[in-house]
Amino acid sequence: MHELRKDPLLGRWVAVLSDSKAPGEYSVPSEDIEELNCMLCSGREKETPPEITAIRREGTQPNTPGWWARVIPSFKPILQIEGDLGRRGVGMYDRMNSIGANEILIETPEHNKKPEDMGFEQMVRILTIYKNRIADLERDSRMRYIFIYKDSGKGAGAVYSHPHSQIVATPVIPKRVKEELDGTKQYYSYKERCIFCDMMREELRSGDRIIFETRNFVAFCPYAPTFPFEFWIMPKRHSCTFQDISRDEIDDLGLMLSSVIKNMRLILKEPPYNYVIHTAPNRIPRRNYWHTLGEDFHWHIEIIPRLARTSGLELGSGFYVLTTSPEDAAKYLREV
Amino acid sequence: MHELRKDPLLGRWVAVLSDSKAPGEYSVPSEDIEELNCMLCSGREKETPPEITAIRREGTQPNTPGWWARVIPSFKPILQIEGDLGRRGVGMYDRMNSIGANEILIETPEHNKKPEDMGFEQMVRILTIYKNRIADLERDSRMRYIFIYKDSGKGAGAVYSHPHSQIVATPVIPKRVKEELDGTKQYYSYKERCIFCDMMREELRSGDRIIFETRNFVAFCPYAPTFPFEFWIMPKRHSCTFQDISRDEIDDLGLMLSSVIKNMRLILKEPPYNYVIHTAPNRIPRRNYWHTLGEDFHWHIEIIPRLARTSGLELGSGFYVLTTSPEDAAKYLREV
Repeated sequence: MHELRKDPLLGRWVAVLSDSKAPGEYSVPSEDIEELNCMLCSGREKETPPEITAIRREGTQPNTPGWWARVIPSFKPILQIEGDLGRRGVGMYDRMNSIGANEILIETPEHNKKPEDMGFEQMVRILTIYKNRIADLERDSRMRYIFIYKDSGKGAGAVYSHPHSQIVATPVIPKRVKEELDGTKQYYSYKERCIFCDMMREELRSGDRIIFETRNFVAFCPYAPTFPFEFWIMPKRHSCTFQDISRDEIDDLGLMLSSVIKNMRLILKEPPYNYVIHTAPNRIPRRNYWHTLGEDFHWHIEIIPRLARTSGLELGSGFYVLTTSPEDAAKYLREV
Repeated sequence: MHELRKDPLLGRWVAVLSDSKAPGEYSVPSEDIEELNCMLCSGREKETPPEITAIRREGTQPNTPGWWARVIPSFKPILQIEGDLGRRGVGMYDRMNSIGANEILIETPEHNKKPEDMGFEQMVRILTIYKNRIADLERDSRMRYIFIYKDSGKGAGAVYSHPHSQIVATPVIPKRVKEELDGTKQYYSYKERCIFCDMMREELRSGDRIIFETRNFVAFCPYAPTFPFEFWIMPKRHSCTFQDISRDEIDDLGLMLSSVIKNMRLILKEPPYNYVIHTAPNRIPRRNYWHTLGEDFHWHIEIIPRLARTSGLELGSGFYVLTTSPEDAAKYLREV
């Protein structure tokens, strides 16, 4: 029999169907992004906005070939770095200027090479850049949140087919982040424990939804996800901000992330997908220390293959239907 | 310059780009739903589950042709009507049985005829059935919410190409509904006024985002929507539940809904779209009266053309980017 499950963090109920679809039963649209002329490829550095940072072979110059990974400002930024916030009311409504940052991290020099196929060292470079960009951008006191995500494939909202991720700094805390912080806080005030640490312990104990475990990280399908085959990667060490990740943890995460993404691509036949880093809001500098909103938060990565279109039901009600149970999804992803 | 706007109800910030895209600049995927063998068409009544209700020509029998609109149970229900809720904990998590109702309203007897093209009387029949189904289903005390929505086109998550809407009764209040109730309540406790009534007054005063106005209803683009060309239809009379709509209001709404949908289809070139009825949760029978959770709510319909895929940004953060401003969208929809 089908069942309803409650997401303990967001309080959202989802329906889990009892007759799980196997990975092969999803007909994933393999739409191409038209791109005859990719500006993200190595060799075209002069045609992009000047690079913000890059990891390059020794002796190569900025804005020339020789890089493994490279960050540039967005070609069409939604948020702009110059100006003040200009927050004000408009009748009963509220508006502010679109201040912030919009950067593209080009994940590989070659168009058709995916970072996870280049070996885990490439993933380590990407993660290192994520860490450095957050640390740099959070110094700007106008910014409240740094959001890092990857779109792969047209069905996942990607604009480029060249492997890339995006870095967005916003002057507001996005709604979904606020909800996660609220959920964490509520649980903490009731139990005096981190909800994510508890979740991880529960998952490791039961083992039903575990995909992969390393010394520092656990990959698992959450009990009440919103999408079939959605899974999370969580550090075992309680830490609210991604940018506090250690060198050792980055190595470990690079290995895990490249491995689980390759497995997911294999069993779901190259699906469009997103991943998103969920981390605490920017630290606010106080006299002698940094103050963090959401100390009780626990950063993690959510990976979402886009196997189906959302209908009016999900869109309007936030009630999601899982056509594959998280237990079955974890089994498929674990036993590749 | 781009700006950020805050949704006064949900507290969600969205980015509105200053260089609005015109309707023709969206390349809407016109994917077909493969359906050689439509069981929703007139003439195949015996092959569907027995009808729950229908509006038919006088003298015709249930489960035979002669109907204008017909409700059947879902072929593959997510929720089932028999059984008890069986709510219990599973470790730290919560689950319950998937109790509820899943019905399909077949909106027209002919596969290729859309209800709005059959004249406003057909839309009135559909709205009348919505009203009656909610009134009937809310009598079941296990049900907390009745959700009515329409998926049109594969890009909007539709499973059938035959015009249809769905009626879903859930034993829980869906997350998004809860958020709207909370937002309404917060505003009410601060202002002692209905936020939707205030919004409508503000919209009618400024006029910038108004699409269409009748005696009983207003159609407008909200100040901070989540999707380009999203618009709402709201009754002028404060009422928390859709099922309290009067005969006179149904006529008026039928006319407005069929007209704005036709206009939207015209300017956006037959986009996939959803509409969703946002109404208060089911009334709970008390001794001598019905008690409604969310008396201060104000029912309305949200119509969402699906012009772009959501990316990791929207999915992970709830921060949406509007590529057409609501003011421009309203202008296009008004001036068809």
